[in-house]
Amino acid sequence: MDSYGRLRGMPAQSNLAAVLHGIGDLRIEDHPMPVPGPNEVVVEVRSVGICGSDVHYYEHGRIGDHVVRAPMVLGHESSGVIVDPGTSSLAAGRRVAMEPGVPCGHCDQCRRGNYNLCPDVVFFATPPVDGSLARYVAVNAAFAHPVPDSMSDDAAALIEPLSVGLWANRRAGTGIGSRVLVTGAGPIGVLCALTARAAGAGWVGLADVHPARLKAAAAFEVDEVIDAREGVDYGSFRPDVLLECSGAPPVVSAGIRALRPLGTAVLVGMGASEEQSLPVSMIQNRELTVTGTFRYAHTYPDAIAMVAAGRIDLDALVGARLPLADSEAALKMGHTDPSVLKTMVLPQD
Amino acid sequence: MDSYGRLRGMPAQSNLAAVLHGIGDLRIEDHPMPVPGPNEVVVEVRSVGICGSDVHYYEHGRIGDHVVRAPMVLGHESSGVIVDPGTSSLAAGRRVAMEPGVPCGHCDQCRRGNYNLCPDVVFFATPPVDGSLARYVAVNAAFAHPVPDSMSDDAAALIEPLSVGLWANRRAGTGIGSRVLVTGAGPIGVLCALTARAAGAGWVGLADVHPARLKAAAAFEVDEVIDAREGVDYGSFRPDVLLECSGAPPVVSAGIRALRPLGTAVLVGMGASEEQSLPVSMIQNRELTVTGTFRYAHTYPDAIAMVAAGRIDLDALVGARLPLADSEAALKMGHTDPSVLKTMVLPQD
Amino acid sequence: MDSYGRLRGMPAQSNLAAVLHGIGDLRIEDHPMPVPGPNEVVVEVRSVGICGSDVHYYEHGRIGDHVVRAPMVLGHESSGVIVDPGTSSLAAGRRVAMEPGVPCGHCDQCRRGNYNLCPDVVFFATPPVDGSLARYVAVNAAFAHPVPDSMSDDAAALIEPLSVGLWANRRAGTGIGSRVLVTGAGPIGVLCALTARAAGAGWVGLADVHPARLKAAAAFEVDEVIDAREGVDYGSFRPDVLLECSGAPPVVSAGIRALRPLGTAVLVGMGASEEQSLPVSMIQNRELTVTGTFRYAHTYPDAIAMVAAGRIDLDALVGARLPLADSEAALKMGHTDPSVLKTMVLPQD
Amino acid sequence: MDSYGRLRGMPAQSNLAAVLHGIGDLRIEDHPMPVPGPNEVVVEVRSVGICGSDVHYYEHGRIGDHVVRAPMVLGHESSGVIVDPGTSSLAAGRRVAMEPGVPCGHCDQCRRGNYNLCPDVVFFATPPVDGSLARYVAVNAAFAHPVPDSMSDDAAALIEPLSVGLWANRRAGTGIGSRVLVTGAGPIGVLCALTARAAGAGWVGLADVHPARLKAAAAFEVDEVIDAREGVDYGSFRPDVLLECSGAPPVVSAGIRALRPLGTAVLVGMGASEEQSLPVSMIQNRELTVTGTFRYAHTYPDAIAMVAAGRIDLDALVGARLPLADSEAALKMGHTDPSVLKTMVLPQD
Repeated sequence: MDSYGRLRGMPAQSNLAAVLHGIGDLRIEDHPMPVPGPNEVVVEVRSVGICGSDVHYYEHGRIGDHVVRAPMVLGHESSGVIVDPGTSSLAAGRRVAMEPGVPCGHCDQCRRGNYNLCPDVVFFATPPVDGSLARYVAVNAAFAHPVPDSMSDDAAALIEPLSVGLWANRRAGTGIGSRVLVTGAGPIGVLCALTARAAGAGWVGLADVHPARLKAAAAFEVDEVIDAREGVDYGSFRPDVLLECSGAPPVVSAGIRALRPLGTAVLVGMGASEEQSLPVSMIQNRELTVTGTFRYAHTYPDAIAMVAAGRIDLDALVGARLPLADSEAALKMGHTDPSVLKTMVLPQD
Repeated sequence: MDSYGRLRGMPAQSNLAAVLHGIGDLRIEDHPMPVPGPNEVVVEVRSVGICGSDVHYYEHGRIGDHVVRAPMVLGHESSGVIVDPGTSSLAAGRRVAMEPGVPCGHCDQCRRGNYNLCPDVVFFATPPVDGSLARYVAVNAAFAHPVPDSMSDDAAALIEPLSVGLWANRRAGTGIGSRVLVTGAGPIGVLCALTARAAGAGWVGLADVHPARLKAAAAFEVDEVIDAREGVDYGSFRPDVLLECSGAPPVVSAGIRALRPLGTAVLVGMGASEEQSLPVSMIQNRELTVTGTFRYAHTYPDAIAMVAAGRIDLDALVGARLPLADSEAALKMGHTDPSVLKTMVLPQD
Repeated sequence: MDSYGRLRGMPAQSNLAAVLHGIGDLRIEDHPMPVPGPNEVVVEVRSVGICGSDVHYYEHGRIGDHVVRAPMVLGHESSGVIVDPGTSSLAAGRRVAMEPGVPCGHCDQCRRGNYNLCPDVVFFATPPVDGSLARYVAVNAAFAHPVPDSMSDDAAALIEPLSVGLWANRRAGTGIGSRVLVTGAGPIGVLCALTARAAGAGWVGLADVHPARLKAAAAFEVDEVIDAREGVDYGSFRPDVLLECSGAPPVVSAGIRALRPLGTAVLVGMGASEEQSLPVSMIQNRELTVTGTFRYAHTYPDAIAMVAAGRIDLDALVGARLPLADSEAALKMGHTDPSVLKTMVLPQD
Repeated sequence: MDSYGRLRGMPAQSNLAAVLHGIGDLRIEDHPMPVPGPNEVVVEVRSVGICGSDVHYYEHGRIGDHVVRAPMVLGHESSGVIVDPGTSSLAAGRRVAMEPGVPCGHCDQCRRGNYNLCPDVVFFATPPVDGSLARYVAVNAAFAHPVPDSMSDDAAALIEPLSVGLWANRRAGTGIGSRVLVTGAGPIGVLCALTARAAGAGWVGLADVHPARLKAAAAFEVDEVIDAREGVDYGSFRPDVLLECSGAPPVVSAGIRALRPLGTAVLVGMGASEEQSLPVSMIQNRELTVTGTFRYAHTYPDAIAMVAAGRIDLDALVGARLPLADSEAALKMGHTDPSVLKTMVLPQD
């Protein structure tokens, strides 16, 4: 690539990255230009979505047991263009969506195809691994998924949260005619809802308690936006599937109680505590299934196909686009303008 | 109902029906006005789709072991309005799609939920049971499925063939990202393809060899219409799912050979002979799954929801609409105008 | 039958039954001789197992929302001999295991094959329905399952709790090589464990905290009896399946925490409260599945086949056998002799 | 290891192997002592089962597209003792069952956990890969599965064909109460039947047409040995599962026709031709599932656990044990003594 060839001649400080040094301490710094390791390609990053986990690390310095102890580049929802294909079969210039977690490939989970449960996965922006909110990153070639020209850089970056929604629906068994209740109308909730529709759901309801989110949700093609501020009486209507994206214990419990016999609850949103009270009697009496998701596996090609075919419009989630220099503003966007569902940072701007 | 009340006062001959007396011998005859049996409602039939099986009985007098030995009313894709609710909880005036097969409810298959495999099912227009190509029919209330006002009479009648497509996809496990090859672009093939898309398939191909069908198929939203007249080299592209709707042995075999390892073939179209040659080595080496469908079960509510939500447009299949008196012309439409995918007969016209 | 023919000539009071009139108030009373209703047979009851639920009604007068408000015959684990086949195809003299719950057959759950979730089921000894701890009962012919001559009356009665164990394993997906942890070594726990072994489990552990139960458990062919009195450190060993039969919240939570990633917990034992605290973070991080069982469906023929083939020895569970007159002693056996795993009452003695 | 240390000092010709040079041309030759490659261990081979595929290569020089073009060591059912652990965590002296196929670990099938379908698998005695009928072989450490001391060398070698039976049952969904018909009573058929029993099958029938096999089959604990020489009328009895191990087209077709509605046929035995005639109408009318197996995946640990727990007795299959020098006699045993179900070669004798 011309641009990369040019960059190769430039000093190392040209690889700017958004580095978290501590709580509320984000710095745009020069990092060494990456070189492709074995099976790796180097990608010029074009778009990076800000995720709630990035914000959480910025605001609290940790998520559960994952503590940021050394400066760490944020970001894991990202797309770009291959500038150094290393020894891979991917061509320079290929636009790719980057799957952020690279599993070991050897453990029992990997060998059984459950690579999202690999205990040795290396995942962008999970301490101590640097993320992709930088101008250039190296990534395993098998996890750099080509996208068609028709797909925007932003949409390619958002294949990552879409994968979360796709995985949730896959584990829920959403199919033709399923009635799916999504609780929590943040980006993951919206993507769970849109994926449910794309999977043939007969009814998709999206519930939240925040006015800004409820307003934003109304812009998407779901069957019902549910204002749960005053509590919700689902009455005799019983969804088949609950995709729980709020993590709030009373919402989890009420959602499970709403399910029809033999229904399935998938807990996507993380709560504040290790244990939560669940309606165990009802789980028994209605033979409900409760499970959770941890990231996703084998979703990228299918998610890319869905978006490429126009069945899900990821660009519609984007509410703000900022240059790398404004990364801190991007992390604060949830407070600045809660109506913004998803903020993208453009590392080349 | 006014209209029905009026009819009640009329002589019995007012229930006109299209009755098959022998090969090529269809007569419009007066039948007694039905009265609701236990758990039955009487429906004023508004629209009836002509199915290939109706044509086959008309042209050959039999389908396999099912032989028309006595005069039999044709038709089983039907919708209408309840005019006598009997003892049911359905109100007179309710518009319904009629599921044509009523199982016994007591046998092992029924008790396990597989009612489509009930050996004692009573099914419209399967000898010796009369069909629904008549002005009035009685039907079990649990199999008269209410449809919303927004759904046309034709669409409500076509919930029946849509159920075949839905069931095929359900048995195939079509889901998000599935690559689905449909062979045979008649009404069932088109509905299999449209259902696959609605279920989140990432690619849907629809193959046929008849120019008129290929032309008709091009009007539907599938990813690829495949002209198989010169044979098809699928190359290295391998679908996950084959929905075989032609029944033609070489097509069946070639379709199975096209599948990726662990792919699934669902044989929907009926062939001319009991046995067929299948690529058994490949079924073993790729661990393919081959199965078939026999009618459907538990599909009507989901199919109605899909159509009501606008995800499948059944009206787009209708190429001709004729009054009851022209039923014979409707049965011949495939020869008269092969571009007509689906012909509807309107018993009240 | 001679015996029944004779009984027919006797006064109605010959049908003695064990009737619960209130907490701790069990009376042996004359009940009218049953006559077969539609689709019913009359069975001379030969053996009835005492279940924890019988004891619970006797001691507390209720189980959750199920309150004994009028005198009710106890008992639902029962076998016997058909003495009046009514209009059924079963012959008088046929020995049968009686499935205690007869579903409506018409609701959505019944039609889908999930008859254990029928809201209108009529179940022996669930208020206000009388149970089968009597000399004669009428039962739906389809729920009177023939047993071979080689099976004892006690074993035929215990097909009922075996069904609970079979259903738990079925919902857990126990199969070849599964490592199954059963918590709670009462009769249901033991039957869960024995069924797991019969289903090919590679390891079956049975844990409890009561010395008498641990001692009793040691007599059964499980791979490990686990004394959990001092807490259990499962270390790095992680079962695939938890069959939770204690209902004790800390045991439930510890059992779920022991599971390997993608493991399944089936909650069989009922707890004291509607809600319980569960390790939600771990359910998410390991993508565990938590579900419950409510009775069983379609288990009797398979359970009978297993026992008939000698793969599970139900007679080995029986620790005491008492005549009907001693029914109250049978209900108190858990206190009298905690080493007795299962007490049978013989109504004809 | 002493013995290996000693051998290391010996000339290379001490690694004797049974090498196929052409049709009917087997030679015992000196091969170089293997050295462990990356991730490999070297195993002193103790027992090797003779498989039908070894015999087929010996008699025909090929199996389908797999042609022996250069001298090739036979054998793939093997066990032994680790003598050089290379860099693995396995200790020298560890007894292991060797899984004969090592997949690439990188292709799509491997990443999804379906490693038996890896197109780049390296499999013992599949041309041009040498097999394990030798005194020493190198094998990937992850595919050298430790076995307990209680397991014989022969049983450890026969974990390989047991894996075929286990995989067939897994794909068939055999479980508690399943009625399983196995056609073809060779070693694979017998192991399919024994695995079905261990998985909780309620009835297992084993059918064949060869008197010697029928006689041998009678020694195993199956519910019914079926002499199919005069054809079999299964009457109204309908198994749930067919495990087809004969590969003979009329047996395949008759077996499928015997299945109950919604039954599953797993084609294990390979036929002589690419295509076979199957009862397609019945596959449709009864919604049967037909699939096949290609080797197995993730079976070794579970198969070892089953045998270690005494639930399947592999030693009972062994009818002859010969030293390496008599390998040719071992290949001819099927003709010499058809009553021998399985012949083992002991490379150290």
